[in-house]
Amino acid sequence: MPGSVLLFSGGLDSTVALYDLRSRKSDVVALSLFYGQRHSVELQSAQKIATRLNVELIQSDIGALQSLFGKNSQTNSTIDVPLGHYTEESMKQTVVPNRNMIFLSCAIALAVSRKFDEVVYAAHGGDHAIYPDCRPEFVKLMDSVSQICDWHPVHVVAPFVHLTKGEIVKRGLSLDVPFAETWSCYQGQTRHCGHCGTCVERKEAFEMAGVADPTIYES
Amino acid sequence: MPGSVLLFSGGLDSTVALYDLRSRKSDVVALSLFYGQRHSVELQSAQKIATRLNVELIQSDIGALQSLFGKNSQTNSTIDVPLGHYTEESMKQTVVPNRNMIFLSCAIALAVSRKFDEVVYAAHGGDHAIYPDCRPEFVKLMDSVSQICDWHPVHVVAPFVHLTKGEIVKRGLSLDVPFAETWSCYQGQTRHCGHCGTCVERKEAFEMAGVADPTIYES
Repeated sequence: MPGSVLLFSGGLDSTVALYDLRSRKSDVVALSLFYGQRHSVELQSAQKIATRLNVELIQSDIGALQSLFGKNSQTNSTIDVPLGHYTEESMKQTVVPNRNMIFLSCAIALAVSRKFDEVVYAAHGGDHAIYPDCRPEFVKLMDSVSQICDWHPVHVVAPFVHLTKGEIVKRGLSLDVPFAETWSCYQGQTRHCGHCGTCVERKEAFEMAGVADPTIYES
Repeated sequence: MPGSVLLFSGGLDSTVALYDLRSRKSDVVALSLFYGQRHSVELQSAQKIATRLNVELIQSDIGALQSLFGKNSQTNSTIDVPLGHYTEESMKQTVVPNRNMIFLSCAIALAVSRKFDEVVYAAHGGDHAIYPDCRPEFVKLMDSVSQICDWHPVHVVAPFVHLTKGEIVKRGLSLDVPFAETWSCYQGQTRHCGHCGTCVERKEAFEMAGVADPTIYES
């Protein structure tokens, strides 16, 4: 059955992906996972946006996996989130090992259960310079294995894998995405900090798209 | 660093795999996952055996994923476990969709954190006639993708993928595996039921190996 499971964090990229899917398909289920992330406030954004779009949202708590993830700033409150523009080194500190394969494997399970034909995630061109599990070759192999992990084949699709974040903002503008409701900041406080790598990227994306950034930053 | 993460259910196959690894390597971590399985009593076997072998065991609760798994007898108490020898149809009822990819992706995350070089799981020749995620082609693709999901490459290895369960019992005998402590039964009561597909397979394995079955069955 044509239907999609979207990995939906409530962030800018996956929200644009949700609006895009929703504009083309009726059978869309969004999946958000709590994995012990410091910025779990993103899941509130996900809930709000899914409700607004009348999309079924499943939120599952796999926070017990934190004990597998070792040292990274996103699932350890004792390690500071690096500030400023990402460097290779600072981005590496934010990596939750194999996070995307874990997420995709859960989404594939859901797609198999629903007899849906695809899993979508919003890895983008700015990510894969550094995050290994956002690269086109990773997507390609996940797509291959998800077609043979069950009798029911599922495709893994990353529609933004060759787009910049600025281009994703442009796509979102054409879909009337409520950007102010999306959450990016890795600090996970009540407002976007404006200083961590994801906040810096978020700001740049609006600049690149040539539109005003509706985000309220802490400073 | 040479080290292995083993997916360890406390069942016959993965216990033989643990004894085999332990006989060759010092850095072995066993990982057991609770995913809402009816036969979670297997995790007690896992704990006992890991303690006996002095192997580090991590047990994580990802039971929240049950809502993704749809209709199968293993994570739904309202669906009966099929009895008698497996047929294609009855075995399908026991399939938790994409379970092994979820398990492997968690084990890979742990291997990356520890800088270990491999993840081992005990899929065997009797399984892959029916379970798609026990087939050699699945193992091969998981091995490929686990080498590029992070900067640190990890291999996925299924040492028993071409062995029958009888051959695994023989291997276990040579390693002094305490078979009576392992758990197979899908009913998950206090004793092995003796009638479900896994119990039937377990009995056959000892017959094929030509040794007495030490299991105490309910009937």
